[in-house]
Amino acid sequence: MEKLFVVKVGGAVLEDENTLNDFLQRFADLNENKILIHGGGRSATQLSTRLGIETKMVDGRRITDEDTITIVTMVYGGLINKKTVAILQSKGCNALGLTGADMNLVTAIKRPVKDIDYGFVGDVVKVDNTAISLLVRSGFVPVIAPLTHDKKGQLLNTNADTMASSIATAMVNQFDVSLVYCFEKAGVLSDPENELSVISELNKNDYQQYLASGTIHSGMIPKLDNSFNALGLGVKNVIITNANSLNTKNGTHLSL
Amino acid sequence: MEKLFVVKVGGAVLEDENTLNDFLQRFADLNENKILIHGGGRSATQLSTRLGIETKMVDGRRITDEDTITIVTMVYGGLINKKTVAILQSKGCNALGLTGADMNLVTAIKRPVKDIDYGFVGDVVKVDNTAISLLVRSGFVPVIAPLTHDKKGQLLNTNADTMASSIATAMVNQFDVSLVYCFEKAGVLSDPENELSVISELNKNDYQQYLASGTIHSGMIPKLDNSFNALGLGVKNVIITNANSLNTKNGTHLSL
Repeated sequence: MEKLFVVKVGGAVLEDENTLNDFLQRFADLNENKILIHGGGRSATQLSTRLGIETKMVDGRRITDEDTITIVTMVYGGLINKKTVAILQSKGCNALGLTGADMNLVTAIKRPVKDIDYGFVGDVVKVDNTAISLLVRSGFVPVIAPLTHDKKGQLLNTNADTMASSIATAMVNQFDVSLVYCFEKAGVLSDPENELSVISELNKNDYQQYLASGTIHSGMIPKLDNSFNALGLGVKNVIITNANSLNTKNGTHLSL
Repeated sequence: MEKLFVVKVGGAVLEDENTLNDFLQRFADLNENKILIHGGGRSATQLSTRLGIETKMVDGRRITDEDTITIVTMVYGGLINKKTVAILQSKGCNALGLTGADMNLVTAIKRPVKDIDYGFVGDVVKVDNTAISLLVRSGFVPVIAPLTHDKKGQLLNTNADTMASSIATAMVNQFDVSLVYCFEKAGVLSDPENELSVISELNKNDYQQYLASGTIHSGMIPKLDNSFNALGLGVKNVIITNANSLNTKNGTHLSL
């Protein structure tokens, strides 16, 4: 089967023009079928502040009221997505920017209210792998913002890590899929204070032990849960690495 | 040849939720190959005001400084484009939202500074009809925001009427193209104060006379110049009509 790289970029990488440009050069140079998924939470928070709208987070997840879905639609679907596409086009990479609503790529349901009302937050229901395949096989590079829709006209805010693992797992019958999470750290660290302490190989058993000892905690947990889930569903490789290390052997390589 | 409708919607239609919804229902019901191009200037002005950024217009054209290109990228490329796509998807229309940067659809050059520096405003250089054809023939409905790029990484603000006529004329070798401008008025009026005074048929000779008498003036002139230009370049029909009259015989029908 042909290879497909599903690359997620987030965090501080999107905030600094030079870092983003270097990353996008590496991504453009990756000579395989590929899809880019981006976050953008920090920019959304900045715009909210400028507009005098309070940002509410619970366990690292953004409470998405009506004003906030408007802001993330502008920031994720517009600003970050289109700037990324324009930069990739300048590097000869034939990108097109999409959300889950475009081509009905990713449908979701509004998260049911239990203890917390997350507002317009979407949990992924279905990824349309046919439309994504058509684009990829036609030589285009989808750049996907973390927005989904409910098929009833409502856009929903969806976690970009989850979006990436959902898309990666939806493609496993058509491609040999690698999922690469790129961010500002060197990988999964055994000492969060030491960038040299990268765990280069991490299997599910070791992961449980790191969890029990508290070595791996907070924001890394959902990313790793998504990753092991993707491996279980047929994704061939999952790598968590620095944005500067895309297309190198660096970072943390996961296995079941 | 197969038919293709290139529909432009702008002005007050985009501002009112019910009017927009009715228009998008009519557009979804149009049972032909189709492309939608939208404006969004009023929303961009509103966001600029909320952010304390002054809006400068010269002859109805927006001076697009660095803050303003950020705003129009968020509003045109994000908010209006993605909301429109989500609504169309809810009506069973398989839309995808794009700018001229996506798939390298529309390249432009930054308008040279003569008397006025328009800033990041793009004049269309080339439309990639191959990519648009691929989407349309695959059953997708492109929804295009009035943003282009210079292929060097810079997004540019481009007049939506011009974007529509450029795209329409680029498709004439592959499709039998109709270009429909939809807005809040009933068509080209012989008396601007009277919505019943629609000029139902307008040829180029009559247009010159209406221009000379001052009956047709200001914002209608570039729209009509674009329209007659498109007819000259092989577009079969150009219609200027109310958003509620899409897919009816109403409005102003142009001929050379």
